[in-house]
Amino acid sequence: MLVNGEKYRTIWLAEDGWAVHIIDQTRFPYAFEIIRLETLQQTVHAIREMQVRGAPLIGATAAYGICLAMRDDTSDSALMGASAALLETRPTAVNLKWALDLMLKALLPIDPEQRMARAYSLANQICDEDIATNMAIGLNGAEIIANIARTKKPGSSVNILTHCNAGWLATVDWGTATAPIYMSHDSGVPVHVWVDETRPRNQGAFLTAWELGQHGVPHTVIVDNAGGHLMQHEEVDLVIVGTDRTTSSGDVCNKIGTYLKALAAKDCGVPFYVALPSSTIDFTLQDGLKEIPIEERSGDEVKRITGRSKTGSIETIEIVAQGSHVANPAFDVTPARLVTGLITERGVLEANRQSIITAFPDRVAAPN
Amino acid sequence: MLVNGEKYRTIWLAEDGWAVHIIDQTRFPYAFEIIRLETLQQTVHAIREMQVRGAPLIGATAAYGICLAMRDDTSDSALMGASAALLETRPTAVNLKWALDLMLKALLPIDPEQRMARAYSLANQICDEDIATNMAIGLNGAEIIANIARTKKPGSSVNILTHCNAGWLATVDWGTATAPIYMSHDSGVPVHVWVDETRPRNQGAFLTAWELGQHGVPHTVIVDNAGGHLMQHEEVDLVIVGTDRTTSSGDVCNKIGTYLKALAAKDCGVPFYVALPSSTIDFTLQDGLKEIPIEERSGDEVKRITGRSKTGSIETIEIVAQGSHVANPAFDVTPARLVTGLITERGVLEANRQSIITAFPDRVAAPN
Repeated sequence: MLVNGEKYRTIWLAEDGWAVHIIDQTRFPYAFEIIRLETLQQTVHAIREMQVRGAPLIGATAAYGICLAMRDDTSDSALMGASAALLETRPTAVNLKWALDLMLKALLPIDPEQRMARAYSLANQICDEDIATNMAIGLNGAEIIANIARTKKPGSSVNILTHCNAGWLATVDWGTATAPIYMSHDSGVPVHVWVDETRPRNQGAFLTAWELGQHGVPHTVIVDNAGGHLMQHEEVDLVIVGTDRTTSSGDVCNKIGTYLKALAAKDCGVPFYVALPSSTIDFTLQDGLKEIPIEERSGDEVKRITGRSKTGSIETIEIVAQGSHVANPAFDVTPARLVTGLITERGVLEANRQSIITAFPDRVAAPN
Repeated sequence: MLVNGEKYRTIWLAEDGWAVHIIDQTRFPYAFEIIRLETLQQTVHAIREMQVRGAPLIGATAAYGICLAMRDDTSDSALMGASAALLETRPTAVNLKWALDLMLKALLPIDPEQRMARAYSLANQICDEDIATNMAIGLNGAEIIANIARTKKPGSSVNILTHCNAGWLATVDWGTATAPIYMSHDSGVPVHVWVDETRPRNQGAFLTAWELGQHGVPHTVIVDNAGGHLMQHEEVDLVIVGTDRTTSSGDVCNKIGTYLKALAAKDCGVPFYVALPSSTIDFTLQDGLKEIPIEERSGDEVKRITGRSKTGSIETIEIVAQGSHVANPAFDVTPARLVTGLITERGVLEANRQSIITAFPDRVAAPN
């Protein structure tokens, strides 16, 4: 999408054809900086430190991590080692495993000498497919927004609440939750987005607000506490969020706090949609609450926050009383019963096993 | 309660017997500073800028504001003017109106020469009664905690989640939501408190964490997004929050985000209690969602945050993408159907009109 009027993806090959360029998402919204990755270790670091984040982009980055590893050593052990190192970076993201499994399955059976070229070809393909998938999600979701727009007074906007960043910055392009928003906006349907700040890492206030602003989409940042109140007062027409992992029964694991918004949507009669590429569906899982391990991240993410000082410098300050303990679970699970629909590349599905399996019979036959 | 091992109230008369001392709550948790109020205008400023906050403390401070106004001018017009100026500071807090009405009713009919002395006597009485009320709330709530403790494994703590600061810092002493916690802790019942950070003003991370820490109560600070997840995983035994305003039907207006926690508690079968002095009950209101005006505060509270830098200085930084709009509703309404019980000075009530009126027939007869 557009940054300062120029078109970008979140990840692309350098002009030399082998190094990988990413946008450093830890510097948002204060700086727009591009990082050049040349090694597996730099790629592991980029994923672990969240210079790239978002399930689809993590998968694409991991695929390029395999490419960079193959430049050094194309042996079976190097391949397996690279995959293991990348897999460890973010235990909750199912796309990571999906992308790495795809790479391993393609590369292990072939001649080591062919592995590097094949790896790049596959990684490029993963990126192109992500974009095609997100455009399909966008078209399917835009139809939902268009239907709601028809019920509103002419000229009034469709109000969409979103949590965290399932925007183009979380994917290769378009985003998942944002794809329907960008497509509606671009086609002239008036939309306005309530952007949850998304503590503790503030991806909403930092990333989603930034990317919507760059693209000219009207939006308002709110604290995570405010969404329920807005829904009670009919200020929200629908919720669209992303997901890091979806079970075959439609349970949705997404950024911590998503469950609270789903409860409020249910209570207030607001449709709650989850936009997802089918790669985030884990067909081996049924009960998200019992089966999905939730990443507990460092308490420093809660205790400290980084922003821009009056002088323009980037400062980190402490915002918790000294001596207090902190806990920081990074995700929660929204049960399928609270989900109005799953916006996928193959249409809008009900959040239940039958609907999901009917849409993706090929994925069930060959789970991940 | 204790600060650095010394016993404090949040508001008290100076040694000269007329000036009013408060603790500057905008400096927490980085500094413990006492402010001396000598005029009505200083008192208006203190309430509006939230140097004092919390419904009961706001009421007590407003009462002393009338005292300070009477030192300058004891005429009817000065009295009415002072009351009007104080009432405007925080439109949502019903205690403010309650305390001011009480002062007006007592002072208007009497000889202006007697007004100053009577005002101080009444303000002192409001403070003493607040403490007695909170101790009664504490005893009633401690019984609930003791009952839950009996169902737990010996030695394991009762886990209590609270939102915002309904602690002793929000009252004259003891607090409302915290009174049961302090009493349980002091009597040897093991408790552990999940402290919601409470964006955007972070009263949980700044105030509740600080006061629990000073008193030695085990606690853990979490972002507002985390409570639902903890309830899903049986990490919360009960929720206790305060309220700024309660309708006669049991709807509860409290800090923005309370409604989301009440929904999660209902969904997870966790008891959701609201601790309140009856002065926060507005018997003129029935439907909280329709009738209670919600204060929209400055977006700067969302955009900027103050904390301690590495060097120990207090810094304010910006934490929202530049150019993005911000909305900042300060309270929300939790419908009575989500409230397990109201912990009042006259016992634990069901959140419905009959239960409330039965407990407070005197308040219905003479509403506010």
